[in-house]
Amino acid sequence: MNVQLALDRLTIEEAIKIATTVREYVDWIEVGTSLIKEFGMESVKQLRKAFPEKVIVADIKTFDNARYEFEMCYKAGADVATIMGAAPKVSIDICVRVAQECGKLVMFDLLNTSLTKLDELLEYKDAIFCGHVSKDQQEISGKTQTLNESKLPQCLIAGEGGRIALAGGITLESLPKLAEIKPYVIIVGSAITKAKDPAKAAKEFKQLIFKLTGGK
Amino acid sequence: MNVQLALDRLTIEEAIKIATTVREYVDWIEVGTSLIKEFGMESVKQLRKAFPEKVIVADIKTFDNARYEFEMCYKAGADVATIMGAAPKVSIDICVRVAQECGKLVMFDLLNTSLTKLDELLEYKDAIFCGHVSKDQQEISGKTQTLNESKLPQCLIAGEGGRIALAGGITLESLPKLAEIKPYVIIVGSAITKAKDPAKAAKEFKQLIFKLTGGK
Repeated sequence: MNVQLALDRLTIEEAIKIATTVREYVDWIEVGTSLIKEFGMESVKQLRKAFPEKVIVADIKTFDNARYEFEMCYKAGADVATIMGAAPKVSIDICVRVAQECGKLVMFDLLNTSLTKLDELLEYKDAIFCGHVSKDQQEISGKTQTLNESKLPQCLIAGEGGRIALAGGITLESLPKLAEIKPYVIIVGSAITKAKDPAKAAKEFKQLIFKLTGGK
Repeated sequence: MNVQLALDRLTIEEAIKIATTVREYVDWIEVGTSLIKEFGMESVKQLRKAFPEKVIVADIKTFDNARYEFEMCYKAGADVATIMGAAPKVSIDICVRVAQECGKLVMFDLLNTSLTKLDELLEYKDAIFCGHVSKDQQEISGKTQTLNESKLPQCLIAGEGGRIALAGGITLESLPKLAEIKPYVIIVGSAITKAKDPAKAAKEFKQLIFKLTGGK
């Protein structure tokens, strides 16, 4: 189980600083959508340069212009790029193809993706399926990631399809329940970045995951 | 009827150059999603600075983190910012509120928005509803904007709701049919930016619109 550190609402410098502090406790580093939209691909390039040993996720949330956006992310140094599950199927096809061509990964952000659409996405066995409770849903509606909110299909939970990522207000308290479905990636943002002591918080996540998974 | 020039897959310098060429024939200038994701808010700032007299549209395609993204666009100088109709209702509410607070406009990008969701959006009478055939749908599936593709609700077409924008491969040939529903904005990208003579193409759009609307 990988810990993905989500970096959002920060300058590039702040993002690098905080990720450096927690470096030894996180596996993947996410260049958040807000960094990309505020600073462009420079954000991905600089995080790539600062963390050559990490998996870099560009949370670009593609909805159209899929080849252009995905090639841009991979060229800037991303290993993984995201597309919205709610996007047209034609764009999802392109992202999957570009990822294959480049030897990189695609993550489907399933926020507000209909069950019919989710069903269609199951053909992409190599993708990572991200059950996502959004920032606005957390901050305004008080929701957080529970498996009920994510509506992940049973076949994924049973391990008969793509890998699962989970995101959205995940804390040390909510992690044990979520870990039961053996997600491939646990995405953590503010529980680390807004902690009084981010390194301590990240270390606790890492230790808890080790305890829950036996290091797998 | 306003002509919105969509600028995509260009550097900021190229975007300013081409918009300068067609300056007198377009009303609104759109900083395309690809410019925002490649160059960040710098793209909006520079286009704002270069075209102080135009309505600047930041095609940010928000799906979450609505206040942060919309405030960022408006502060950078945008008059209009876009949110996906497929985004969670809570984020759409926030965008509408931020627009009101800032005295700016919201455009809903209706790409892949379900009819149920579209129905929900009709409460926002001040928004601009953009029927959108995407780049990928155009380039891969050969679709272009026809009123059938857009599935705009009858009440909007009848003028009993928000204003309409239309986008997606619009040409001089397809414009007369589309103009029948009296859109508030016609979004034109490659028919101008990829024309041999962009100024001539933009002038022809402007003249045709004048002819079709009597200058209204």
